[in-house]
Amino acid sequence: MLNLIILSRDADEYRALIEKAHLPDLNITTDYTQAEIVVGEPKVIQEALPRLSQAKWVQSIYAGVEPLLDPAQRRDYLLTNARSVFGELMSEYVFGYLLFLEKKMLDRMEAQELREWRRTEPGTLRGKTIGLLGVGSIGAHLAGTAKHFGMKVRGFTRESETSTDVDKYFHPSINGQNGLMEFTQALDYLVCVLPRTENTNKIVDAQLLNALPHHAVIVNVGRGNAVDELALEKALKEGRLSAAVLDVFEKEPVPAEHPFWSTPNLYMTYHTSAISYPEDITRVFIENYLLYIEGKPLKYVVDFERGY
Amino acid sequence: MLNLIILSRDADEYRALIEKAHLPDLNITTDYTQAEIVVGEPKVIQEALPRLSQAKWVQSIYAGVEPLLDPAQRRDYLLTNARSVFGELMSEYVFGYLLFLEKKMLDRMEAQELREWRRTEPGTLRGKTIGLLGVGSIGAHLAGTAKHFGMKVRGFTRESETSTDVDKYFHPSINGQNGLMEFTQALDYLVCVLPRTENTNKIVDAQLLNALPHHAVIVNVGRGNAVDELALEKALKEGRLSAAVLDVFEKEPVPAEHPFWSTPNLYMTYHTSAISYPEDITRVFIENYLLYIEGKPLKYVVDFERGY
Repeated sequence: MLNLIILSRDADEYRALIEKAHLPDLNITTDYTQAEIVVGEPKVIQEALPRLSQAKWVQSIYAGVEPLLDPAQRRDYLLTNARSVFGELMSEYVFGYLLFLEKKMLDRMEAQELREWRRTEPGTLRGKTIGLLGVGSIGAHLAGTAKHFGMKVRGFTRESETSTDVDKYFHPSINGQNGLMEFTQALDYLVCVLPRTENTNKIVDAQLLNALPHHAVIVNVGRGNAVDELALEKALKEGRLSAAVLDVFEKEPVPAEHPFWSTPNLYMTYHTSAISYPEDITRVFIENYLLYIEGKPLKYVVDFERGY
Repeated sequence: MLNLIILSRDADEYRALIEKAHLPDLNITTDYTQAEIVVGEPKVIQEALPRLSQAKWVQSIYAGVEPLLDPAQRRDYLLTNARSVFGELMSEYVFGYLLFLEKKMLDRMEAQELREWRRTEPGTLRGKTIGLLGVGSIGAHLAGTAKHFGMKVRGFTRESETSTDVDKYFHPSINGQNGLMEFTQALDYLVCVLPRTENTNKIVDAQLLNALPHHAVIVNVGRGNAVDELALEKALKEGRLSAAVLDVFEKEPVPAEHPFWSTPNLYMTYHTSAISYPEDITRVFIENYLLYIEGKPLKYVVDFERGY
């Protein structure tokens, strides 16, 4: 028997879903010291790490696993995260907001308020260029939706070029040129899907924001550390960007005194662009559990050094 | 030489685009009595009909050709409309508004106004059921986008079943049952894409609205005649529908005293869900012109009796 402990706010729901799957040789325990397998939120698991003496495999229910990456902590277990389940939800969020802006929905609502038949011409996604800062499983899904809407797709990655829906890839250095600046030029939309790592800190800085066309829209659904928030606030205030849609921030919850709450053309959401639905995450766990008991390599393994 | 007259507000743009194509044997004229081919807005062409004595083929730049359908008018020419070009734009509009509602964008904006980190759970399109009232080229495109977002798709048509992205078709009568009522039950979204004909008048009436679940959203991007506006207003006021998004109305522009301007959960736009871009329509014209000079059957021919 393999002992699994569930360390999550939604533990009851996960327990019911996992029990329903009747997985072979699996016992769900509440005894930290007996658990070989751990499923849950990274933050909750981090706090329990010292007591999880038998843990060999930890399945995070989130994509982001920052609390477990601290080099001062134990790393003597296999860490897998939730991947491949957020692409659809992220596509809904990102393209929902791009269409909200292109279709000038606020302008229509204002006209309705004034009882005015106002035929302002809407914009369109078709033919526009979207740049994906990070093309993992979420970025690849966004690329597919962008192609569905007839868009041109650019991808910026360290080196991988896995999604065929990306028309053109860019990497940190191209023939001695700054690949990030090349990537940024002539984008209509910049969507940041980067994880929090040392290499992604303030990658969207004043220089990058200056390289974007003034009509560009920026969306961040990755991690807040990737954006220089002061530089973004400045660009929006000075009208050097059309709009920004942010689901993640340097500090969450965003403090009440933060300038973003009242920055013009900035749309805030509250780290809800992709929810971890237990049904989705349980599918990921089951898939990995069946590999685990056969001694096969697991999916979605996190490299502690790389951070994702 | 074949003489073409362009009867459109955007005549200069159409002339430039058509001239650029260097079509064989084509001459653009401004002499109504010499024109064998007519391109333009149906309303403008209707007014010119008595003078268009040589007209053999009329290419409408709109999908809707109501002004040319009056049986009291001449019908001794071939009428083609603009089709296959609006699907992408309609998808952007329809799914933009569905996502606007699912992602609770107004709730997020209100929270931002209040500087409140409000993590209301968003909804999702995935797994929801969309019903398409009418599945022509626009409906087929909507079906494709719905499948991209992981939705179940129902289609209601007179008899055609052309799009394979529709999971289940319904027709006016199924085994003596009312197919429209069968179609309507358990829909999360009802999208009306019907042309204006005698058969589509108030097809969305009090009975149909009653058959929809209370959480349902209704979208009309077809023609205003299809919706019983009083019944819809009543359903929204009584909370028997979640929301309505309307781009078309019985009378356009909507009169200032119309109750829709202030009906709760009703979102109005002003017949702009799909714009006729001259680049798109010129492609349709060129395609048909090349068939015309070879004596082949044209595409997108309108049946004067059927009305589309």
